[in-house]
Amino acid sequence: MGSEVKEINLKALFIGDKSENGYLYKDILSELIDEHLGWRHNYMPQDPPEITIEDQQSDSYRQTVTRMKNVLGEVSTRLRTHSVPWHTAGRYWGHMNAETLMPALLAYNFAMLWNGNNVAYESSPATSQMEEEVGSDFAKLMGFENGWGHIVADGSLANLEGLWYARNIKSLPLAMKDVIPEAVADKTDWQLMNLSMEEILGILKKFPDRIDDIKSKSARSGKNLQKLGKWLVPQTKHYSWMKAADIIGIGLDQVVQVPLNNKYRMDVVALENVIRDFAKKEIPILGVVAVVGSTEEGAIDEVDKIVALRKKLQKEGIYFYLHVDAAYGGYARSIVLDEDGSLIPYEKLTSWYTEHGVFTKADGMISRDVYNAFAAISEAESVTIDPHKMGYIPYSAGGIAIKDIFMREVISYFATYVFEKGAEIPALLGAYILEGSKAGATAASVWAAHHVLPLNVTGYGKLIGASIEGAHHFYDFLKGMSFTIGDKTVDVIPLIHPDFNMVDYVFKERGNQSLAAMNSLNSAFYKASSFTAGCLYDNGYITSHTDFSVADYGDSPIAFVHDELGFSMNEWNTTQKVTILRACVLTPYMGDQKEFDKFATQIQLIFQQRLEGILK
Amino acid sequence: MGSEVKEINLKALFIGDKSENGYLYKDILSELIDEHLGWRHNYMPQDPPEITIEDQQSDSYRQTVTRMKNVLGEVSTRLRTHSVPWHTAGRYWGHMNAETLMPALLAYNFAMLWNGNNVAYESSPATSQMEEEVGSDFAKLMGFENGWGHIVADGSLANLEGLWYARNIKSLPLAMKDVIPEAVADKTDWQLMNLSMEEILGILKKFPDRIDDIKSKSARSGKNLQKLGKWLVPQTKHYSWMKAADIIGIGLDQVVQVPLNNKYRMDVVALENVIRDFAKKEIPILGVVAVVGSTEEGAIDEVDKIVALRKKLQKEGIYFYLHVDAAYGGYARSIVLDEDGSLIPYEKLTSWYTEHGVFTKADGMISRDVYNAFAAISEAESVTIDPHKMGYIPYSAGGIAIKDIFMREVISYFATYVFEKGAEIPALLGAYILEGSKAGATAASVWAAHHVLPLNVTGYGKLIGASIEGAHHFYDFLKGMSFTIGDKTVDVIPLIHPDFNMVDYVFKERGNQSLAAMNSLNSAFYKASSFTAGCLYDNGYITSHTDFSVADYGDSPIAFVHDELGFSMNEWNTTQKVTILRACVLTPYMGDQKEFDKFATQIQLIFQQRLEGILK
Repeated sequence: MGSEVKEINLKALFIGDKSENGYLYKDILSELIDEHLGWRHNYMPQDPPEITIEDQQSDSYRQTVTRMKNVLGEVSTRLRTHSVPWHTAGRYWGHMNAETLMPALLAYNFAMLWNGNNVAYESSPATSQMEEEVGSDFAKLMGFENGWGHIVADGSLANLEGLWYARNIKSLPLAMKDVIPEAVADKTDWQLMNLSMEEILGILKKFPDRIDDIKSKSARSGKNLQKLGKWLVPQTKHYSWMKAADIIGIGLDQVVQVPLNNKYRMDVVALENVIRDFAKKEIPILGVVAVVGSTEEGAIDEVDKIVALRKKLQKEGIYFYLHVDAAYGGYARSIVLDEDGSLIPYEKLTSWYTEHGVFTKADGMISRDVYNAFAAISEAESVTIDPHKMGYIPYSAGGIAIKDIFMREVISYFATYVFEKGAEIPALLGAYILEGSKAGATAASVWAAHHVLPLNVTGYGKLIGASIEGAHHFYDFLKGMSFTIGDKTVDVIPLIHPDFNMVDYVFKERGNQSLAAMNSLNSAFYKASSFTAGCLYDNGYITSHTDFSVADYGDSPIAFVHDELGFSMNEWNTTQKVTILRACVLTPYMGDQKEFDKFATQIQLIFQQRLEGILK
Repeated sequence: MGSEVKEINLKALFIGDKSENGYLYKDILSELIDEHLGWRHNYMPQDPPEITIEDQQSDSYRQTVTRMKNVLGEVSTRLRTHSVPWHTAGRYWGHMNAETLMPALLAYNFAMLWNGNNVAYESSPATSQMEEEVGSDFAKLMGFENGWGHIVADGSLANLEGLWYARNIKSLPLAMKDVIPEAVADKTDWQLMNLSMEEILGILKKFPDRIDDIKSKSARSGKNLQKLGKWLVPQTKHYSWMKAADIIGIGLDQVVQVPLNNKYRMDVVALENVIRDFAKKEIPILGVVAVVGSTEEGAIDEVDKIVALRKKLQKEGIYFYLHVDAAYGGYARSIVLDEDGSLIPYEKLTSWYTEHGVFTKADGMISRDVYNAFAAISEAESVTIDPHKMGYIPYSAGGIAIKDIFMREVISYFATYVFEKGAEIPALLGAYILEGSKAGATAASVWAAHHVLPLNVTGYGKLIGASIEGAHHFYDFLKGMSFTIGDKTVDVIPLIHPDFNMVDYVFKERGNQSLAAMNSLNSAFYKASSFTAGCLYDNGYITSHTDFSVADYGDSPIAFVHDELGFSMNEWNTTQKVTILRACVLTPYMGDQKEFDKFATQIQLIFQQRLEGILK
């Protein structure tokens, strides 16, 4: 493989907004399929073909082919009529979607013909090996030296798996008290509930013959779930955290939402207060979730400060499991890593970016806060990372990385027919994961992408850099923009300067003092700029929206609604939500200011027309 | 679509063991891709292409393309070196795998180019609609008139979701006691824990304004998990049931394994005894799992008898949730349904089979036991069904069907940015499922297959019929076969007559009285007939294996080990497991006796050679 590339050209890696690389895609695919067909042909070439030419000439064969073609024709019609044109270079400013990488699509299509099942090596020797390597990539990307990882169907499941790890590991000390009391005799229950993961696994490793016994008394038995304490998430948490707490059995009553600071990051001072308040009541903290790339704001929690807080509290006998939900932002850690996967010092980022063409303007794209947060992820116990988000891989491809490969032993299972405990088979994946059968094709897809685009500043860093710069262009474009609609003036006001590549914004009529009226305006704008307006195929500007409600966000939006937009506190208290427009900027083409400007004029015109349609 | 097909020709639907339909596959795929490329080209045709011819002529572009081709070359090499040749017509007799349907592959490849995410309609209008229709197909296939269903990443997750439904629904009465005590004031706790699903949902529907309150006090809160009682599974259960009980928080301590009868079906008399023993102690039964197609034997539990038992016990105030794990056998219910999806009377099956060419010999392929089991699935609350098993769909495609669409309300969540409660958007899938993001392409894939092969005796029934008949041929071939190896004679002994399309078998040296020695022989045979022997590509007979151990099966294997094979009870008690070879017969080509015979000679020769290699 090792072909040297002086500089990756991202334009060679996508089919293209106007199918510019369509023929390249088809040529490579055709060659790959031929290689597969030849493989079938040549396995035991002496065997007779089961489908004869006579079969192929029969009426029933021809009728069946006709039916198949008609059905696929209907699939094509439906998809062309009702799909989202997020391949566009500059007209889709909505959900977390864009073109996906050609190598990922091609590898998926190809590997699918073999249909490996990565639940067990036996079913998928080639793709199981690839998943093992991809898992290793995830761990290395997060800075886990002794880590491990694997592909998960999606980020919600990876979050659930992270919580499963936390629940089962944190429950071990109580099981040890039962099975090997001598090992923990010197500790109170409070101390047991505040052992660090290293301490817990350290004790476990000392009793290799008792591991199965201890596991059987852990949370997997159904015992002690309510003793494990609280699961802390920022108010920006993805809703999958609520589902996960429900499913895993600790329950929603144990979930505590931590307020945000005015950058929509978890407020670490508030976090400390929450933890100390529970500690006073001897209620342990099962774990804390830091979000790296919040779903609705792209905010990046200050993982470094959370880690520092944990170190401080640990000295006082308080410890919590730390899971980083980097489903969205995980791949972006590439942008601070050099070719060996080592952290580039912050001061040297600019020169690396200039050398590798990561940004057209290298300054100020990665703030020190964001850098510090990325750097500190290596201190977490587990991390969710979704290839199908910033990995530009087609659905479904989520992922998880864990800090210490030994953590697997706490959740592992063995099923006779797929694997034998202790058997020397590589990658007994089904024993160590929440899921069962899983497409080997996904592993081939992610593996191919990682080999074309290395997980550092020269590869994925460059692709994600283009998306970040595109977001900055969009933010600069919106900020200060205003429209005259008859005798009204409408301003565009972004929520926050993007930590990453998401830009939230609202339209506000100047002088309007009703939050409900502003919400209506933005809802109406969304409706005109989404599938609710009818056919997406002739919609020239598409966006998404979200609501920040008191139920989810508490009073965190006041900084924006009151302080910045000027609505009265009474408005906030009455209306209880603010409707926000939301653009996740994944397009790799808008990092170039000149190209962005070509679309900017069009978009501004559409804004004007839509506002006129709503307000006149 | 509605092209009339007098008789489906299965040979038009697979690429073919010798790539016979390879060109057809490529032609259709090429046309579909062109339709996609044209769509990209023509969305806002006035926009400039971002990838210019100059870009494509640059050094960096060419180098990047070269790297991509090299990486894909490595993917191809690895897959061709280390994949399982289960496309073969008659040499793969192992895991639950075979060729997958061409329309499913094509629809996946095509839909993937749009990369819809079915978590929310907004991201995937076309494929979300298809998933809604596929879910409806699942429900109809199971005989659920008011049911619902959706695609799940795999069967383990669908089982977990079934248990989630059971846990949260069965916990509602205790929540009602808290929130609407007046509604259940006349009932004891024991009665509350034994309300039927209909009764529970009936009460819930009477208090529409209190549903959220009641749900918040249900098991999702973390409350009462240990009060819900026992989860009963047959000893043949898939290991995912242990994981599911762990993850869902009821715990492994609540899982009770029910013994098997000598057909490896759950022993319904034993089941009744288990339930009555718990009832005496006022320990409720959360639910019972019936397996339709056990993973290692293809055994089909007598769902009809379990349903009859439930009716009997209900009169005595005992009720349990019934989940049917038909991950494997679910699609096979097609074989007892007519073109309207109605159950064909048992007596009329033969004439239907003859008319539609389901079997070459129509008699005796579907036993009355199996028919009755299939018929009774409509009485269950939920069913796991995996398209990537008997649906001949590529991974990953699992599924679930529920009896009553209202059940969804008990587990539903809403997240602001993807959906609004009450909004009139079709298919707010993410609110009602365990998972998050999911490939729209999977829905297109399953949808296309269902439209080419209807879920009845004329479509899937015919495909699955071919596999069942192939299994019968293989069983008849093995039964009574013996080999002379020097002065030794080795007999082949099948485990049971197949309920479905799986054939388990052992080699036994005549006169050998050591179970351990027999296990070694079969292990050695497996090793020679699997990836452990080295390259799979030149292996002319491939099978899989399993162990029935006391830990999993209790004493259920005694009927085979002692009664049939003649080992002493002491041998069983000492060795504690029997190693079995296992052939899941999915190939659609071996239903034809003449075609089977062509391979039979080859296989017999390989058996002889391998046994000589082991025993000489």
